[in-house]
Amino acid sequence: MQFQIEATSGCARTGRLATPHGVVETPVFMPVGTLASVKGISQDILEELGVEILLGNTYHLYLRPGIEQIRKLGGLHRFMAWPRAILTDSGGFQVFSLNDLRKVTEQGVTFRSHLDGSSHFLGPESAMEAQIALGADIIMAFDECTEYPADEERGRKSMELTLRWAERSKKYFEGHRHEVPWGSGRRPSALSPQENPSNACLGTASLSCPAQLAVTQDSRSPSAGSGHALDSTVRPDNGPHDSGRDENAEREEWSQSLFGIVQGGMDPDLRKESAERTVEIGFPGYAIGGLSVGEPRRLTRETVEATIQHLPADKPRYLMGVGTPEEIIEYANLGIDMMDCVLPTRAARHGLLFTSEGKVSIKQARYGGDESPLDPICGCRVCQRYSRAYLRHLYASNEVLAQVLNTVHNLSFYLDTMRAVRHSIALGKKACFLSGEQSQRKP
Amino acid sequence: MQFQIEATSGCARTGRLATPHGVVETPVFMPVGTLASVKGISQDILEELGVEILLGNTYHLYLRPGIEQIRKLGGLHRFMAWPRAILTDSGGFQVFSLNDLRKVTEQGVTFRSHLDGSSHFLGPESAMEAQIALGADIIMAFDECTEYPADEERGRKSMELTLRWAERSKKYFEGHRHEVPWGSGRRPSALSPQENPSNACLGTASLSCPAQLAVTQDSRSPSAGSGHALDSTVRPDNGPHDSGRDENAEREEWSQSLFGIVQGGMDPDLRKESAERTVEIGFPGYAIGGLSVGEPRRLTRETVEATIQHLPADKPRYLMGVGTPEEIIEYANLGIDMMDCVLPTRAARHGLLFTSEGKVSIKQARYGGDESPLDPICGCRVCQRYSRAYLRHLYASNEVLAQVLNTVHNLSFYLDTMRAVRHSIALGKKACFLSGEQSQRKP
Repeated sequence: MQFQIEATSGCARTGRLATPHGVVETPVFMPVGTLASVKGISQDILEELGVEILLGNTYHLYLRPGIEQIRKLGGLHRFMAWPRAILTDSGGFQVFSLNDLRKVTEQGVTFRSHLDGSSHFLGPESAMEAQIALGADIIMAFDECTEYPADEERGRKSMELTLRWAERSKKYFEGHRHEVPWGSGRRPSALSPQENPSNACLGTASLSCPAQLAVTQDSRSPSAGSGHALDSTVRPDNGPHDSGRDENAEREEWSQSLFGIVQGGMDPDLRKESAERTVEIGFPGYAIGGLSVGEPRRLTRETVEATIQHLPADKPRYLMGVGTPEEIIEYANLGIDMMDCVLPTRAARHGLLFTSEGKVSIKQARYGGDESPLDPICGCRVCQRYSRAYLRHLYASNEVLAQVLNTVHNLSFYLDTMRAVRHSIALGKKACFLSGEQSQRKP
Repeated sequence: MQFQIEATSGCARTGRLATPHGVVETPVFMPVGTLASVKGISQDILEELGVEILLGNTYHLYLRPGIEQIRKLGGLHRFMAWPRAILTDSGGFQVFSLNDLRKVTEQGVTFRSHLDGSSHFLGPESAMEAQIALGADIIMAFDECTEYPADEERGRKSMELTLRWAERSKKYFEGHRHEVPWGSGRRPSALSPQENPSNACLGTASLSCPAQLAVTQDSRSPSAGSGHALDSTVRPDNGPHDSGRDENAEREEWSQSLFGIVQGGMDPDLRKESAERTVEIGFPGYAIGGLSVGEPRRLTRETVEATIQHLPADKPRYLMGVGTPEEIIEYANLGIDMMDCVLPTRAARHGLLFTSEGKVSIKQARYGGDESPLDPICGCRVCQRYSRAYLRHLYASNEVLAQVLNTVHNLSFYLDTMRAVRHSIALGKKACFLSGEQSQRKP
C-alpha cells in the first residue's frame, strides 16, 4: 500500500492511498457495508456515488455467511462483486459492544452470537486469520476498545492489552498474509481479463492487480459459468485510479495492509504513550480507536488532537466511528485522513436526512405537500428527481424505496462534503461546510 | 388514446398503445406500483428495465397519502416523478378483498381502512373522481369482482351490478375528465420544457403532452424551487415513443381513457352477455376481471377464451391480475394485450426467483457456495454482476438489498419474457417460453 500526500493546508492534507483494489483519495469517508452490503444500495450505485472504499464488519461476516464460505468464494471483493477497496475492522469493537455477552482474557474474547447465542472466540490471531481470508485491502489489529468512562488504571490496563494484541496481530499477519484469497505474491501485471493468466508477469504499462489474476484464473474453472461478467467487475476501475503510477509503485508487492490502533481512553498521556508504542511496533497506517463511545464531543476533539501529534505525518491516520457532517470536516482539518460511521446510512433509514439547509426529518407531516427537492443544491439522483412530498409519503408508508432513496442522498451528502473538503485543502484553504450559513449553525 | 395493431400470429397480436405519457408496446406486462412505488425499485431503474407503463392502486393511494394531496401536487405522474404511462385500478378489487370489512349496496361499497379501521365509501362516481385526480393515463370502471365460486344467480346479480356501475362510471368520467390535473384540453404542442408555455399551441413536429405543459407552468411558480429538474423528468421519453406520429394523432385530444370491465364469474354465457353489454356501453378498451380469484388455472383459461371472442378485436384487452411467466405467454397467445400481477415483485421479496432454468428459491442453503449467476442467460444487472451465493447471503441475512436485487431480476425476467413474446408474434410465430427446456417443465 502506498500513501502519497498531495497538498496541505494547516494540519489538513489531501492524499492518495494506493491499494490493491484501486486508489482512494483522502480525506475519505468510508460507508459501512456491514454484512457485505451497504444497506439497500447496490454496488453500481455506490460506484456512481464515487465510493472508492467501503468498510466491512468482520464480526458480522464471521457469523453470516461465515469466513470460510467467503474465502472459498475468493474473498469479500469477489463475493460482493465490489472491485474497489475494502477495509475490515477486526471484530473487536462489535465484541466490545455486546457487553453482556463477552469475557475478555489475555488470549482474546469469548462471546455469544447476538443471533442465536452460540459461543465463539476471537483473538488477535483468529481476527487476523479471518481478515486475511476476507481479503480486505486494509485490515485492523485486534484491539480492546476501552469503555467510557474509564479511570487511569483501567485505561492503562486496557491500553497495554491492546499493545500486546497489536504485537500478536502483526506477527500472525506477517506469517500468513500470503494466504489472502486473491494474492499471488507476484508483481502487478498488465493482464486484462481476456488475456492468458500465465502471461501474468509481463509488466506492461497498464496495471491490474492480483485480485484480477485470481478472478481470471477462476473464470476458467468449470463451476464459474460461461459468460459470467464477474471477472470484469472485479477489475479495478481503470479511470483516474491507474493514472500516474511510477516505476517504484509498479514493483511494489500488492497485498493487504494491517493498521495499528491507538487506545488510551481520554487521557492525553496514555494516548501519547499508546501512539508511540504502537508506532514502535510499526504499521503502514494508524487508527485512533476508543472514541465516539459516549464521551462529549469536546473531549473527542481534544483526544484526537492529543493523539494525532504523536502519529507519523507520512502515514494515513484513521479516526474510527465518526461522525456528523460537521465533525468529519472538523477532523479532516485536524489531519485525519480516513473516517467511517454508520450515521449517514442508519439515520437515512430513520428518515433523518442531512442537507445543506440542515437536518430534515422527512417523516414530518409538513413535508406532505412540499414539492421542492430535498436539498436544493444537491446533485444526487434523489434531489434531482423526487420531491420532499414523495419522500415523506414513502417513509410514512414504510416503503422500502424510502430507505433506498434516503440512503442514496445521505451518502451523497457525505461524499460531496468530503469532496469539497479535499478541494478546499488542495486550494490551501481550511475546509468548511458546504453552505456559508452552516458555519453559523449549531451542530 | 390510440391503439394500433402491428402484427398478428393466430389470436396473438402486437400493438402500440399511444397514451398521453408515451407509447406502450403490447402485449405488455405492467409492474404493480401499489403505493406510488414498485417496492424497492427506483424510477430510473424501472426506466432502465424498459417499463413503459406501471399500475397504481387507487385504494391504497386513497388511504396514503390521500387523493387530494396527490391532486394538489399535480397528479400521480408528477408526484412519483414517473414520466411514462400509468394505469390505475378503481379500488374495487382491494375493497372486495377486504371481505370482512365491507358492505355492498347499489350506491357502492362502505369499507373500513385496513390501516386504522376508519370508515370509508367508494362508488362509481367517487372512484372516477379519485382516478381523475390521480391522473393515470388509463383508468378502470368501478366494478364488483365476483367471488369464486359463485352460483349462476349470484354471478348474474353481480354482473348486472357491475354493468350499472359501468354506466355510472362512464357518465361521471365524461362529465369530469377535464379536471385531470395535467389536462389542458388543448391539442398537443411542440413545447419543450424550456419554451414559453404561452406558445403552447404552435403544433410543430415534435410532440409533447399536456402533462408537460402543466409541469412547465408549475416550474415558474415560486414554490417550485430553482433548478429543480422535475420538469424534465415528467417529459415523455422522446425516443422511439414519439416517432412516426401522423397528423390525425396530432389532432387527437390527449386525455385519460376509461376501460370497462367484464365480469360474469366462470359462466361462459354470463361472460358473453357481460362482454356484449359492456361493449354496448362503449369503452376504448376492455378488461377481463374476476379471474385469478382462486379458480383452477384450466378454468381461468377457458373463461378467457369464452370472453375474449366477444370483445372487439380493434381495442386493447386487459386481463387483470395474472400471472406466472408461463401464463402471461399463454394469455398473450389467446389475444390478451395487457396484464398486471404482483407475483414477480411479491415473489422476489420472498426469495422466489424466476429463471430460464425454472424457479429458484434463493434462501436454500445449497446456493450458499454457488458462484454462478442466478440465471445464466439473463442480461439484467443482477445476473451480470452477482452470484447466487451472494444473493442467498443477502436474503438469509434479511438485507434490504436482497429485496431490491431479487425484484430487479424478476421484473427483468417478466419484461424480457414479454419482449420475446412480442418478437415471436411479430415474426408470425406462436410465442413460447424463453428456453426450449421450459416448454416441457411442469409449471
